[in-house]
Amino acid sequence: MHILIIGAAGMVGRKLTERLVRDGRIGSRTIDQLSLVDVVAPDKPQGFGGKVVTQAADLASPGVAERLIAARPDMIVHLAAIVSGEAEADFDRGYRINLDATRALFEAIRQEGLKSPYVPRLVFTSSIAVFGAPFPDKIGDEFFTTPLTSYGTQKAIGELLLSDYSRRGFFDGIGIRLPTICVRPGKPNKAASGFFSNILREPLSGQEAVLPVDESVRHWHASPRAAVSFLLHAMTMDLSALGNRRNVTLPGLSATVGEQIEALRRVAGEKAVKLIRREPDPTIVKIVSGWPQNFDARRATALGFQAEKTFDEIIRIHIEDELGGKVG
Amino acid sequence: MHILIIGAAGMVGRKLTERLVRDGRIGSRTIDQLSLVDVVAPDKPQGFGGKVVTQAADLASPGVAERLIAARPDMIVHLAAIVSGEAEADFDRGYRINLDATRALFEAIRQEGLKSPYVPRLVFTSSIAVFGAPFPDKIGDEFFTTPLTSYGTQKAIGELLLSDYSRRGFFDGIGIRLPTICVRPGKPNKAASGFFSNILREPLSGQEAVLPVDESVRHWHASPRAAVSFLLHAMTMDLSALGNRRNVTLPGLSATVGEQIEALRRVAGEKAVKLIRREPDPTIVKIVSGWPQNFDARRATALGFQAEKTFDEIIRIHIEDELGGKVG
Repeated sequence: MHILIIGAAGMVGRKLTERLVRDGRIGSRTIDQLSLVDVVAPDKPQGFGGKVVTQAADLASPGVAERLIAARPDMIVHLAAIVSGEAEADFDRGYRINLDATRALFEAIRQEGLKSPYVPRLVFTSSIAVFGAPFPDKIGDEFFTTPLTSYGTQKAIGELLLSDYSRRGFFDGIGIRLPTICVRPGKPNKAASGFFSNILREPLSGQEAVLPVDESVRHWHASPRAAVSFLLHAMTMDLSALGNRRNVTLPGLSATVGEQIEALRRVAGEKAVKLIRREPDPTIVKIVSGWPQNFDARRATALGFQAEKTFDEIIRIHIEDELGGKVG
Repeated sequence: MHILIIGAAGMVGRKLTERLVRDGRIGSRTIDQLSLVDVVAPDKPQGFGGKVVTQAADLASPGVAERLIAARPDMIVHLAAIVSGEAEADFDRGYRINLDATRALFEAIRQEGLKSPYVPRLVFTSSIAVFGAPFPDKIGDEFFTTPLTSYGTQKAIGELLLSDYSRRGFFDGIGIRLPTICVRPGKPNKAASGFFSNILREPLSGQEAVLPVDESVRHWHASPRAAVSFLLHAMTMDLSALGNRRNVTLPGLSATVGEQIEALRRVAGEKAVKLIRREPDPTIVKIVSGWPQNFDARRATALGFQAEKTFDEIIRIHIEDELGGKVG
């Protein structure tokens, strides 16, 4: 089994790589080769028995997709994307990376298959940004996609292409709409969604964090560990259960910021909660007001995808996976 | 007012042109120029007071969109498309014409606007092919788009691009999902949907027609006259009522083939009905089984779009507009 991960240097890509290296297999099959690609060369994982190829490459550049696919990986995980804020600020770059590169990848697979039969598994990470307000209380599996960002538009187009290429038999694809990943490890970043993680991660390490919105704000979350489990399930499950509807909203946990803070209090105490500083930011308040708050993800649940049930669990996963089990 | 019609040589394009020439104005504004473009040069309309430019051009060819937009038309009606069957048979050609050319047009408008302010009205004809079975009894305005053809995929992508370009302020766009147009004038064609028109048009002219499906088949229809009225409304209405949801399912008439035949009997008598020959075609039966049957198009109705209420009316429109008022 040869697995190609595009966008392997990102947070989810690194965690997926770690897991694949640790397992050495996927489902019942041994992993012989891992090809790890990103715009900066991903770190070479240690302790992997098979072959590892890491490379820096821009999927949107002519010939790159064809070159990656010429090696005929059995499984392709396409995580690469320009994030929401950047795709909104730089229209051309967003469309180039999030749409043109994705299409180039899909098309390279089709062209490779025209030479001799080749139908790899393809997992595409989409986003709940394909949805745009106004929403019902819970967004169902048949709700329409009316994105309010260029990023969401590009992801929704990727989903449509994935469905059509799968229906045509060019690859066996699945698009998974990830919840917002929380607690995101690393430094605070400038993403509008950053505070959902910041208000937990920073206090857990004894640092102050800024909360720019009201505690009543509700959003849809899953842990980094859940994200990896989603990918593994998408890589191994029988996709015939999807029929021609190849894109699924994944399960997550709908919680308010207030509920996040209460979970922090239960897990790490009042001392941690006191490190959250309220500093309303009208720009972020406005952006977040257009985001989904809750889903009824029964289709993905029936397909075997599972997310956390409480925010306590999400926080404990962060403490276990990122803090060596200790609250600082 | 300068109006550019792309796809002007097609049935709907010709009927729209005729109407604009006859009116000489659109809403309250005089039409100074009509630019008519298609892959074959559209006929030059007679009796128009303003300037008419007709040209043969392939919108997907490099530079064509830029050249058309350099004249800064105030209003652009984009009707050009490869039909469903052809887009399914020729994957590359479908994506080139239905997706790449549409994107080239949108992008040319954006680039023109970067030189100096330019925000034209843009009307894009989408299709109910953006939907794919299984369906609810009536497809509502918030039902998701899961096309089962490459054509439907390309139209759904065009809709997403149109929304994003409109949201960004690059043009003032609306995408209208036309019902199946019935009675389509002209010769019987090989489109899988052709029989819906054939079984009325041919008997009304004393010719035999083949019915390849069961009378219980239900579908969604509007007359060519309604199609022109939809376009005129989309060209003139205040689009701010759409918010960021720029694509609408238009009203139509949901009817079974049996109901179509009963209407034919009422309007043209038993003699006409006797000219319908039942000859089941399993291929067409299968294709049609995946098509939408009924919609609850309340949003478009509230926005002022109107379709026929009975099939008798649809048949009478054909007799008036195509047969000089006489049944042959």
